[in-house]
Amino acid sequence: MSKTKRRGRVPSLDPVAGDGLINRRALLGHGIAIAGSMGAGAALTGAAAEPLTDQPWSLAFGSVTPPVQTASRFEKDMARTLSNPQGEFRNSHARTPHHLLGGTVTPNGLHFSINHCGVPDIDPAKHKLVIHGMVRQPLEFTLETLSRYPLVTRMAFLECAGNSAPMFSSEPMQVTAQAIHGLVSNSEWAGVPLSTLLEEAGIDGNAKWLIAEGADAQFLDRSIPVKKAYDDALVAIYQNGERLMPGNGYPMRLFLPGYEGNMNVKFLRRLKLAEQPAMSFYESKTYSMILPGGKSWRFNFLQEVKSFITHPSFGHSLKGPGFYEISGIAYSGTGRIAKVLVSADGGKSWAEAALTAPVNSKSFTRFRMPWRWDGQPVTLQSRAWDEAGNFQPLRAEFVAARGETKTPPNPLGFPNQHYNSITSWGIDNKGEIKHVYA
Amino acid sequence: MSKTKRRGRVPSLDPVAGDGLINRRALLGHGIAIAGSMGAGAALTGAAAEPLTDQPWSLAFGSVTPPVQTASRFEKDMARTLSNPQGEFRNSHARTPHHLLGGTVTPNGLHFSINHCGVPDIDPAKHKLVIHGMVRQPLEFTLETLSRYPLVTRMAFLECAGNSAPMFSSEPMQVTAQAIHGLVSNSEWAGVPLSTLLEEAGIDGNAKWLIAEGADAQFLDRSIPVKKAYDDALVAIYQNGERLMPGNGYPMRLFLPGYEGNMNVKFLRRLKLAEQPAMSFYESKTYSMILPGGKSWRFNFLQEVKSFITHPSFGHSLKGPGFYEISGIAYSGTGRIAKVLVSADGGKSWAEAALTAPVNSKSFTRFRMPWRWDGQPVTLQSRAWDEAGNFQPLRAEFVAARGETKTPPNPLGFPNQHYNSITSWGIDNKGEIKHVYA
Repeated sequence: MSKTKRRGRVPSLDPVAGDGLINRRALLGHGIAIAGSMGAGAALTGAAAEPLTDQPWSLAFGSVTPPVQTASRFEKDMARTLSNPQGEFRNSHARTPHHLLGGTVTPNGLHFSINHCGVPDIDPAKHKLVIHGMVRQPLEFTLETLSRYPLVTRMAFLECAGNSAPMFSSEPMQVTAQAIHGLVSNSEWAGVPLSTLLEEAGIDGNAKWLIAEGADAQFLDRSIPVKKAYDDALVAIYQNGERLMPGNGYPMRLFLPGYEGNMNVKFLRRLKLAEQPAMSFYESKTYSMILPGGKSWRFNFLQEVKSFITHPSFGHSLKGPGFYEISGIAYSGTGRIAKVLVSADGGKSWAEAALTAPVNSKSFTRFRMPWRWDGQPVTLQSRAWDEAGNFQPLRAEFVAARGETKTPPNPLGFPNQHYNSITSWGIDNKGEIKHVYA
Repeated sequence: MSKTKRRGRVPSLDPVAGDGLINRRALLGHGIAIAGSMGAGAALTGAAAEPLTDQPWSLAFGSVTPPVQTASRFEKDMARTLSNPQGEFRNSHARTPHHLLGGTVTPNGLHFSINHCGVPDIDPAKHKLVIHGMVRQPLEFTLETLSRYPLVTRMAFLECAGNSAPMFSSEPMQVTAQAIHGLVSNSEWAGVPLSTLLEEAGIDGNAKWLIAEGADAQFLDRSIPVKKAYDDALVAIYQNGERLMPGNGYPMRLFLPGYEGNMNVKFLRRLKLAEQPAMSFYESKTYSMILPGGKSWRFNFLQEVKSFITHPSFGHSLKGPGFYEISGIAYSGTGRIAKVLVSADGGKSWAEAALTAPVNSKSFTRFRMPWRWDGQPVTLQSRAWDEAGNFQPLRAEFVAARGETKTPPNPLGFPNQHYNSITSWGIDNKGEIKHVYA
């Protein structure tokens, strides 16, 4: 290993925590103290000074440019996995492939979706949103009239309360980050602040709840505190710049940054102001959270601080000792991510990861940690803190408070929701990666 | 118009500039001083208190959830327009539909592309990147080895130098913002800092240029100052989270934030360090900029500050007098957007627009301006400033310096590039919108 410190302020490649974690500021940006020490790029010598041979794609005209471009045919796995690929008469989950993604934006085609009654084929010209109940003046909006209001834009995550449910299993399931954590995604949502619309309708001072209903055959009703509506709620009409995906609420949906996915009612057609929550079928049955001992939390809106490592993770393998980057995503329904710690020795020692800027509130933040693997078994973990001081509980603490399910579990039948503890990846001396509890 | 000022600090809806522009802080967020004054939402009375009728999509199970979801069938125009839809043996442009998009992210399917020799079908397992020439140690990278380096993420625009070329026409062309400005898009790019790779190769102190070459049949060579490579250049491998689109450089491309599109060499296979620029075919012929009088600028890398209104714009029409939001995008290859002014009276008076946060460097920033249209003819314009104090020139100034082309022009044959003056939309008393020069 040849180290050349060219500029004094650059941290060295010496480990900052157990099993090869390196200072997060090493290797980033200018004045990098590596100069040959990474060894990832293969050195070329002699005849290899002109090493490029022309491949077929260098010698022939390529294919026609399509109106809407799609991923390369070599990226077949860059797709959502489906719980109900034949569209049977039950709910249908489509999970984001986090183990294959970089950055923080989830492309629209890969945004997770859950639909209980299939994907509706809504004609936007015939869709209406009504605000009524305890208001001075009931109002009706079309997509056209809604689009005339001032829009705001938020880069924000959306997460199903049941995301990470496989982590309730008493034995670690050997599946990818997509299978475990694929029910969370991150997009730029643009829409009309709900406060604007409520102000125009003029809500009664005694109206404390807002019953939101979707237009698909599920007729999902959820109760939302009026306080949230006046905080940062939107009626969203754009997702990463374009109109919403049909599975994500086209042509309009409620968007409640940081609140559990199902409250962000899709295909939004009704907002009824009321004194009391609706205690509707789904909110009292499916979305109440059962605790060990049989008690349940009636409402549990917030998606708490969470992180998980996406690279490397189950489904990858390491190609021999040497330099790798550990990276993953962190987010909190409370606000910005403040810090992420990473461990390579199963939690015995930790080092602080670099956070990719900008660190947006209630949005994915990618963390990164340089790492030199020496070929010995290691256990990788991440643990996130948000700006309010909340942090991910350790697994033992979490399970004690919230319970677990005997393996083998049914991935659709876990009794609990809102898992936000730690995910661990065990790597053996061959570079094979398993999901472990540590 | 009934105004209710509920909270003292909220600006009123009184105009702040000619023809109905309203303070940018009105209508946004809490305490909105409108309470019924917008008049966009239709009031419901009497029997309409339960106004929702079930549509077919409310009464039947919907369609199967797909692995990669796509836009609704009702969004047929949410696509790129193509200059070469049959894939003839010439270059092929695909333009982003800015007049239909909201927010700042361009979805990958809609990112503009220009390919001179079609879209290559590159096997990422066989693709290599070589860094050689004036280096201590030539290096070769595969996608796998490149992915082991620390990645950085940048939300940034990419713009063809020929974007907005229709604006060189001596008469305003009656086409959409997509046709005029569709060769710019904005994505989150993730990749390895070029400085990391150059440090590892160890470049010769006399190497001032870097000749970048793509692997497709065009063999595009462009010369890039080493200084830019050490500033913020990337070898990008992710675009909005997923692998690059085939038309945008899959599996890896050079990304030079703020520099003209063609320098961001796609399908990157070679970076050769040299003392002098290559003066290759494309850079000396196609991408040299000819000025009035016949002189030309050999190199003109920077995409200067620009803005244009997307809503409302050509292709839309206003449905009667009342409230609308004017919005558009602004960006600068120099850094952050500092301010955008909007005019509704053809430049006689201006008011400052709201900028959507976060305002990222070298990235789209959406600006927004509340506006009440009184039904009389107006001319909408926007003009942007960046943080370095650069601003869009007025059209008369721009044409005097840079020339124009007699109408009818050939959209592919304009003599000039790098248009960054003002775009004007004229609206008549029927709400019809034309492209005008004002």
